[in-house]
Amino acid sequence: MTLRSVDRPWEALHDVIASNNMAALQAFLETLGPTETARAISRLSQEDQNQLFALLTPAVAAEVIEDVSEKQAADLIEVLPPKQAAAIIDELQSDLQADLLGEICSESAEAILDEMSPEEAEEARELMAFPPDTAGGIMIAEFLAFREDRTIQYVLDRLQRNRETYARYHVQYLYVRDGQGRLTGVLRMHDLLFPERTRRLKELMIPNPLYIEATASIQDLQAFFDEHKLFGVPVVDSETRMLGVVLPHDVEEAALKQADRQFLGTSGIVGGEEFRSMPLALRSRRRLSWLSINIVLNIIAASVIALYQDTLAAAIALAVFLPIISDMSGCSGNQAVAVSMRELTLGLVRPNEMLRVVGKEASLGLINGLVLGILLGGAALLWKQNPVLGLVVGVALMLNTLLAVSLGGLLPLALKRLKLDPALVSGPILTTVTDMCGFFLVLSFATMALPRLS
Amino acid sequence: MTLRSVDRPWEALHDVIASNNMAALQAFLETLGPTETARAISRLSQEDQNQLFALLTPAVAAEVIEDVSEKQAADLIEVLPPKQAAAIIDELQSDLQADLLGEICSESAEAILDEMSPEEAEEARELMAFPPDTAGGIMIAEFLAFREDRTIQYVLDRLQRNRETYARYHVQYLYVRDGQGRLTGVLRMHDLLFPERTRRLKELMIPNPLYIEATASIQDLQAFFDEHKLFGVPVVDSETRMLGVVLPHDVEEAALKQADRQFLGTSGIVGGEEFRSMPLALRSRRRLSWLSINIVLNIIAASVIALYQDTLAAAIALAVFLPIISDMSGCSGNQAVAVSMRELTLGLVRPNEMLRVVGKEASLGLINGLVLGILLGGAALLWKQNPVLGLVVGVALMLNTLLAVSLGGLLPLALKRLKLDPALVSGPILTTVTDMCGFFLVLSFATMALPRLS
Repeated sequence: MTLRSVDRPWEALHDVIASNNMAALQAFLETLGPTETARAISRLSQEDQNQLFALLTPAVAAEVIEDVSEKQAADLIEVLPPKQAAAIIDELQSDLQADLLGEICSESAEAILDEMSPEEAEEARELMAFPPDTAGGIMIAEFLAFREDRTIQYVLDRLQRNRETYARYHVQYLYVRDGQGRLTGVLRMHDLLFPERTRRLKELMIPNPLYIEATASIQDLQAFFDEHKLFGVPVVDSETRMLGVVLPHDVEEAALKQADRQFLGTSGIVGGEEFRSMPLALRSRRRLSWLSINIVLNIIAASVIALYQDTLAAAIALAVFLPIISDMSGCSGNQAVAVSMRELTLGLVRPNEMLRVVGKEASLGLINGLVLGILLGGAALLWKQNPVLGLVVGVALMLNTLLAVSLGGLLPLALKRLKLDPALVSGPILTTVTDMCGFFLVLSFATMALPRLS
Repeated sequence: MTLRSVDRPWEALHDVIASNNMAALQAFLETLGPTETARAISRLSQEDQNQLFALLTPAVAAEVIEDVSEKQAADLIEVLPPKQAAAIIDELQSDLQADLLGEICSESAEAILDEMSPEEAEEARELMAFPPDTAGGIMIAEFLAFREDRTIQYVLDRLQRNRETYARYHVQYLYVRDGQGRLTGVLRMHDLLFPERTRRLKELMIPNPLYIEATASIQDLQAFFDEHKLFGVPVVDSETRMLGVVLPHDVEEAALKQADRQFLGTSGIVGGEEFRSMPLALRSRRRLSWLSINIVLNIIAASVIALYQDTLAAAIALAVFLPIISDMSGCSGNQAVAVSMRELTLGLVRPNEMLRVVGKEASLGLINGLVLGILLGGAALLWKQNPVLGLVVGVALMLNTLLAVSLGGLLPLALKRLKLDPALVSGPILTTVTDMCGFFLVLSFATMALPRLS
């Protein structure tokens, strides 16, 4: 039993669920760490998953939801009756509420919002209005703010009265605002303990606190917390009215999510994440949505070959080199794409600095093109003992490498300016263009040199 | 001037460096955020960079080093005289010291360690001994620990006497150990304030504290901090002797670094990061190291085509489809690679669960292979009005897609078991195998059907 519950916890979980014993189920879940919980639940059948959530109280179900990844959580929540889903989501922190509801299809999300408590639903709706990769999108709406003319006594009374609600907040600071709701100061919680109770916040607060606008990017926030070691930063609208608080942990999490999305995007996994516990039809459809665009682009690129069928028939050895030139140019170009995406993320290059990137990549493309061209041309020469074949293949790969790295370096900057996702779009555009040019170069050179090739 | 310092801060920085005015330089650097600092320094000439560090005090230089990315920092440090480099590294926190020295070539690192203060050097050497993706590799050596028979008075005296050193620590807890150095308890700092000064730590500490072993992975640590909301966790050796402390921030940072490395690895950027500020020769050499292996693999794969030259000459239309089958199989396989790598990272699948992965991928491969095969076969049929050509091309792509996704799903698990880096190795193996099989399938089918093809 011990071994089994470590190695295949979903089997034990299945048994506990089947026993219909809520206390035993809760006890078992507590023995699992977050990773184990996520793994075990992902292996349950749909009926077991439903039965699991039917047995748990909303509070315990919310803890389970916090353990699993966002995508997994959204899938679990989406199939529950809206009333039950709403009860669970009510228990979560506002930023997670908004993230989850954002992952769920909008109809189901609306149905759940209608069943949630009105205040929670309003908060969640407000947070959902911000793009996910901004300060507004990752802030929490649970923060403490008081008007600057309040006394210490008033604040302490309020904290005392609402202590159950506030206990759930990650509170390290207390924010102070003026009559119009504009942020004017900040106090640390322990600043409340020592002064006289009749003094007003205005006299005690640290004025002109640091803040960040709701539109700030994840990279802005990373830079902010790198520079200022704070437990959180207030988020304000364009009139410095306070909207929420961003915690450093959530910034790191958002940066990680961005990096994961980038990785999945360049590999052709669209629509967020894919787990093998998802229904086969969904997984297949999502992957095909990207593949079917790719096959059309591939057919367009390869049609260049069809134009040169006579050349190819006369010098059939060329057919061996076409897939090599296509693949190698793609590889060289993808390296440049990756470097540009990293430099954009780190803020080392800006989308308008295209000239700099092309300059840096073109010189590298010349060197690498020369090396790769000599390698491939040499291989062609050795194989067929034909220097013209070597020259045609080598020069074509050289020129195409130069093109591929320059284009690869540029594409992420250009796509960023066009507000397209470089991770998803760079690859297909790059390989289509470099394939067409590569096929054209090698086959048009071959046509010119045909008498000496065959 | 204002606009310029925002848009092209390296020009302003160059001017300040040229003025040789240390105070002005320091003041200018303080106006730049971390991202701007990193960007500005990366654009300076080598002489300007040397002059910059010659002007700065070690403490200010250390702040600059903290602002830039690790790779950039290592490059900056490496070119300094060892004595100057050591003075700067002495000012950094121990985990960053070890990370930086680990990035620098081992000869230079040794020269710097020899110049560092003996205690700092020893700490750094100890930390460098742990693999970077473990608790030992990301822990800090700055922590407070006292023997359990010490009194509160003793501890407070020590804190008072060493307050300058301790002020640099991110300290929230005080750890308690027995005579053999084994971790036995923990105290929060404010627990020291209220009890009588003569009481001993043993009586006040929370016994049996949570800890983590030095060999724990980043994923273990993420799971730990997901479950326990603590400011840090003590790291122990196999005999529960305390070695250091891991902070949640460093776990998130390490996870982000892993994700970035994964992204760069799959794109063929080896040796950590590449920035366009690096010397051209280095960038070219690193990219070529991966490309030159790839071109050899490509030539091996394409040699399958050479074996079927006669078939190809007889049915030249096939040459159009070879690059398409190669590229599409690579794409389908890479999707499966990406999902396996994500599931491994999240702990949703373990390296020994190969059967599960093959089962899940094979069924998807059948569906997607069928769809893509019909698309490509249909295109071939429409183009040449030859159903046999459509059948050959379509069935070959179908079978090769099935192979590609099954292999793509498996590879990361298998490579993980062999302790190879799936990000760097999966792609080249996958495309070589799927290219060979794809070419073989389409050309051997074509050979069999030759009378009806040409």
